[in-house]
Amino acid sequence: MNKIVIIGTGNVGTNLAVAFANCGIAPVQIISRNKENAQKLAEKINCPNYSYKLADLIEADFYFLCTNDNAIQHLAESTELHGKTVIHTSGSTSIDVLRKNRKKYGVFYPLQTFNKHKIIDFDEIPVCIEGSDSEIEQELKFLAEKISDNVHLVNSEQRLKLHIAAVFVNNFVNHLFAIANEIIERENLQANMLEQLIKKTLENAIGQNPKEIQTGPARRNDTETIAKHLTILKSISEKYADIYKVLSDSIISLYKN
Amino acid sequence: MNKIVIIGTGNVGTNLAVAFANCGIAPVQIISRNKENAQKLAEKINCPNYSYKLADLIEADFYFLCTNDNAIQHLAESTELHGKTVIHTSGSTSIDVLRKNRKKYGVFYPLQTFNKHKIIDFDEIPVCIEGSDSEIEQELKFLAEKISDNVHLVNSEQRLKLHIAAVFVNNFVNHLFAIANEIIERENLQANMLEQLIKKTLENAIGQNPKEIQTGPARRNDTETIAKHLTILKSISEKYADIYKVLSDSIISLYKN
Repeated sequence: MNKIVIIGTGNVGTNLAVAFANCGIAPVQIISRNKENAQKLAEKINCPNYSYKLADLIEADFYFLCTNDNAIQHLAESTELHGKTVIHTSGSTSIDVLRKNRKKYGVFYPLQTFNKHKIIDFDEIPVCIEGSDSEIEQELKFLAEKISDNVHLVNSEQRLKLHIAAVFVNNFVNHLFAIANEIIERENLQANMLEQLIKKTLENAIGQNPKEIQTGPARRNDTETIAKHLTILKSISEKYADIYKVLSDSIISLYKN
Repeated sequence: MNKIVIIGTGNVGTNLAVAFANCGIAPVQIISRNKENAQKLAEKINCPNYSYKLADLIEADFYFLCTNDNAIQHLAESTELHGKTVIHTSGSTSIDVLRKNRKKYGVFYPLQTFNKHKIIDFDEIPVCIEGSDSEIEQELKFLAEKISDNVHLVNSEQRLKLHIAAVFVNNFVNHLFAIANEIIERENLQANMLEQLIKKTLENAIGQNPKEIQTGPARRNDTETIAKHLTILKSISEKYADIYKVLSDSIISLYKN
């Protein structure tokens, strides 16, 4: 029950293939539109079989689609995958897009940000499982538990909300860091002056309720400081001022009552 | 040159008093409007002298104002502090509010988020110094270097921008964490499912350029996923949808050119 084909050699496909291989479930084939990428990943995990064509697909128990969201349905409905057990790895894609032409399908969504050039340990990464039936859910759970101690059964609606939450804590937080860097670099100050504060922010967030530890001008409803900051920000970027305003308004209204 | 009075026993005053005391520069007096708070902090650092009245102020080299921003100028202009060397510790307050009635004054701004109930090590905290003249700048630098290896001369305009940057990386990031928690707790999922992602996000931010490592639907200009997320968010909170929109727009426009 452990023969896996990995389709897609991007950030998720690469990290997942390596994680499986490291746990003794080496994928039996790597497929990528880009032949060189397929070969690279296959060599990395000592997988003898790779190709850039779906026509070369071999028999396996699970076909993991590790592609962009908008390629998933098209791939799943391709003739080559007809009847095969297809698993997607996307946060915001419903399991239903896999339903056509098969009985068994599922989702295997690792809640983490990946980089194909920096393989990370899956041990503690939450893996969210959904299956077309409870049998495949158990099979996917078994697979997931080989690589992670943090496996959850999560339906498509929950997973979509997890993905939204992930966008807030990863993508948006990173963008706020980028804005902060830009603001201080314009003053010829070093961006690493913010490192200690960033570390503390993280440390505070783990194991505490962020709603309870909120601080800052908006939390105090310190309208004078907020106005001062907005004047400066408008001179740098109207967009950054908008971000400041909408986030401050949200904080103020959250603590008003 | 090291006789310090701490005025204000909040998060900054408490952490600063303890940091000085730990480095052998024990404050000679603690002042707080709240007598009990003054006593508590004084006892914590074995300071024999404390009061809730400015009238009790004793002679010292530096009077550190560790109060709310809006109390600084009023305090600095009080008769009791007339002619005395007053130092404020605020990010967003100009040094100029201290000018009246004295020749020497300065700013000592530690760029960190503090909690009076969790004393933290000052070693690596950036301390931003500004003085009414270079002599006091040197004196404050000497004091700051006793407690931190990360001391910078920073003028009022730079400091204001540092404070804005700090609001982005601490206050706003923490609010995004609060929103993410709310979203997933509504789905009866555990908030700690986000911990690994939060850790990775901050790990990635240290020593890398956040602009270069940005990922996510907005970075890819994946309008389909963005629209899906906005529909869900609007059903939870219009404010959260606004935040999502303004941050996504900012990311999209940052990478457009």
